[in-house]
Amino acid sequence: MIYDLAIIGGGPAGYTAAELAGKNGLKTVLFEKNNLGGICLNEGCIPTKTLLYSAKVYQTARDAAKYAISCENVAFDLPKIIARKTKIVRKLTAGIRAKMNEAGVETVIGEAIVKAKGEERKATEIECNGQIYSANKLLLCTGSETVVPPIPGLKETAFWTSREALENKEVTESLLIIGGGVIGIEFASFFNTLGAKVIVVEMLDEILPGIDKQLSALLRNELLKKGIEFHLSSRVVSVNGRQIEIEKAGEKSISEASKILLSVGRKPVLTGFGLETLNVKLSGNGLKVNEYMQTSHPDIYACGDITGFSLLAHTAVREAEIAVGHILGKNEKMSYKAIPGVIYTNPETASVGKTEETLQAENTAYTVKQLPMAYSGRFVAENEQGNGVCKIIEGEDGTILGVHILGNPASEIIVIAGIAIEKGIKADELKTMIFPHPTVGEIIKETL
Amino acid sequence: MIYDLAIIGGGPAGYTAAELAGKNGLKTVLFEKNNLGGICLNEGCIPTKTLLYSAKVYQTARDAAKYAISCENVAFDLPKIIARKTKIVRKLTAGIRAKMNEAGVETVIGEAIVKAKGEERKATEIECNGQIYSANKLLLCTGSETVVPPIPGLKETAFWTSREALENKEVTESLLIIGGGVIGIEFASFFNTLGAKVIVVEMLDEILPGIDKQLSALLRNELLKKGIEFHLSSRVVSVNGRQIEIEKAGEKSISEASKILLSVGRKPVLTGFGLETLNVKLSGNGLKVNEYMQTSHPDIYACGDITGFSLLAHTAVREAEIAVGHILGKNEKMSYKAIPGVIYTNPETASVGKTEETLQAENTAYTVKQLPMAYSGRFVAENEQGNGVCKIIEGEDGTILGVHILGNPASEIIVIAGIAIEKGIKADELKTMIFPHPTVGEIIKETL
Repeated sequence: MIYDLAIIGGGPAGYTAAELAGKNGLKTVLFEKNNLGGICLNEGCIPTKTLLYSAKVYQTARDAAKYAISCENVAFDLPKIIARKTKIVRKLTAGIRAKMNEAGVETVIGEAIVKAKGEERKATEIECNGQIYSANKLLLCTGSETVVPPIPGLKETAFWTSREALENKEVTESLLIIGGGVIGIEFASFFNTLGAKVIVVEMLDEILPGIDKQLSALLRNELLKKGIEFHLSSRVVSVNGRQIEIEKAGEKSISEASKILLSVGRKPVLTGFGLETLNVKLSGNGLKVNEYMQTSHPDIYACGDITGFSLLAHTAVREAEIAVGHILGKNEKMSYKAIPGVIYTNPETASVGKTEETLQAENTAYTVKQLPMAYSGRFVAENEQGNGVCKIIEGEDGTILGVHILGNPASEIIVIAGIAIEKGIKADELKTMIFPHPTVGEIIKETL
Repeated sequence: MIYDLAIIGGGPAGYTAAELAGKNGLKTVLFEKNNLGGICLNEGCIPTKTLLYSAKVYQTARDAAKYAISCENVAFDLPKIIARKTKIVRKLTAGIRAKMNEAGVETVIGEAIVKAKGEERKATEIECNGQIYSANKLLLCTGSETVVPPIPGLKETAFWTSREALENKEVTESLLIIGGGVIGIEFASFFNTLGAKVIVVEMLDEILPGIDKQLSALLRNELLKKGIEFHLSSRVVSVNGRQIEIEKAGEKSISEASKILLSVGRKPVLTGFGLETLNVKLSGNGLKVNEYMQTSHPDIYACGDITGFSLLAHTAVREAEIAVGHILGKNEKMSYKAIPGVIYTNPETASVGKTEETLQAENTAYTVKQLPMAYSGRFVAENEQGNGVCKIIEGEDGTILGVHILGNPASEIIVIAGIAIEKGIKADELKTMIFPHPTVGEIIKETL
């Protein structure tokens, strides 16, 4: 039997594509070597959010007096927090399994390896668990893995990546985080809330590269107030047990920490599944794809982190929709202009569209409108002494180019701005929309 | 001196109109007899949300164990909760005062009374604090007041309206709420959380008239589990101190409560400011207006609760924008098709567009798509054992007709659906938007 579509990798790109393909009548097989849901569900987005939510409840209880509520002996139970995380991941993984079944997708747990693909054969052959599967179309969504830089002494320590940090059941006394990107900062926030001494070392001159610099600085300042130590424009040059040597502008210093978390970045997984057999082109450090998510071979598609840009679950989901749509004969193109980015610290930060930095680099004229979040009555009601900002960048013709929000629940309201950017709803038009009162989202209307 | 615009009433309609008019160069005077901000800011939306948020913090601390957090002796301090509410109201009122000053609006605190308006005079004359003000255009935004039905014995008890409930500093042992609309249900949720025995009496066969019935029933069920008692299709026929006589289908029974909260509805304020002088037409129980918010006299506009429909702050704000826009020569029309409604209980309920009930009454064909909120990974992470539903009603051509959500933070995500309805973004198009992962808002994409 020949499948219409074989998918390697069961993360957000893979399971979204499989469900959609199956529902649309494509005979589909999905290979996953570990757990359905991929990094996002098993070791990324969802597990971190359950941990961060427990931390938020802990913080809420500790700060309850701000809202005239008292409570005593507030404590957390990290093994239970981890157990809850594991339970939720299981529940959601089961949900994806159920979706695959409903959609008639054949799911195979095992390492899939592409065996043959050539001009002379029509279908690709994939081996998994000793069996051969043939498919007319192939979708690669193998995801990404943690980059481990060659820092002398690092490998000799039992350093953490996000995976180990999510399984750890004891609060480390002190934690040095190498890399101040989204993953690093979310863990910094989590372990700081639980009482660990946290040090963040970032090579660039600001944390959260890619995010609006004003917001990153504001968030860093909020985290600084909570006791997190930051070393910017700095890099770890060597590790010797608890001693971590940091270089900044040629000067070296030693920081001490009982644990190291490595979060300098992630890179596409390009090996271990027979990519070499396919002879497809690369671009940067990922697979080259066109706007339909096709690789250089028209029967082979690639979605998600394997392409090496974006590296976000929701990008992967949309790419999967585009790829399967194309296989089904649609001609929708992938658009990257309104992909929100969220940092789930407390307070949250969310962004969509362009930053001032990008626009300056592009030489695009723009104007900035911004307001403190305290202009939203609901924000004031729910964030005693809370800071935040809503920043909207407009083009000369009133087009919304970027929206950047610091303050809860930025993650939930940023999509409003994303829709405006994607659909070309201009500032003058967006502000005529009726936002319910009182909500934090009104800050967008207010800022405009 | 003749003002371009005189506004009577400094609530959301009045202050929005005044700010906009002032910023656009209209010489504007705003009359407010009590406090800037109106009922919404002083005795409505904002104060209730501060109280409800304290209740939410209290509930979070009490339920912290669900998230592996422990705390002891959780307690609230109602006088402090009320004091915080008062402080926030003051802060926000000061913010509005500052906005009026910035916009060059003359604010007059006092009772304004229209003195003269006729064919022979160009400007309307308004008297306030013994002084006469003349203005070419007049905007009426006097708002609404609590309806007090003639229930025998009610006036003899010290019953509460929302005003008194917001100032009360002791948790009443038991509270009977007459009227299961939004105000009644929000207070029911608040006092129930603080430990009062709460009884709700609603005349109709479901609470929250106007809201999707399935959601109202689900929310009622959630509140029932928390111990709130409901009497549907019932009315209070007499009050005798603590004894409240309730009639249902001809049968009478007695309930006991130490306090009564009256929330059967609100009606437009049409007296006390010389409306009779203006000779404008009424419609239903409010002022008649056209789609530019003009009354039957072209120089007199009316916005907000005085028109007698909607009775929501965000409707008032949009109406004010329309009215001032029209005075400034714009021809934008008021649209009521995407006005969100929110009930700030825990869990929240939010709605926009039409309900199944309305569509059936209109004989419009529709299909319903719905999913439990547990399809959102973030909802699961943040709502242990939480229930909820996202219900989307589509027309035959894929137009989104209504969206109804039960589950936090419904209030913040409903505007996404509102924008889709207002802009005519169809279901197929809305689901191509990129919602950040993991967020609760994704449930909209997932449901579609």
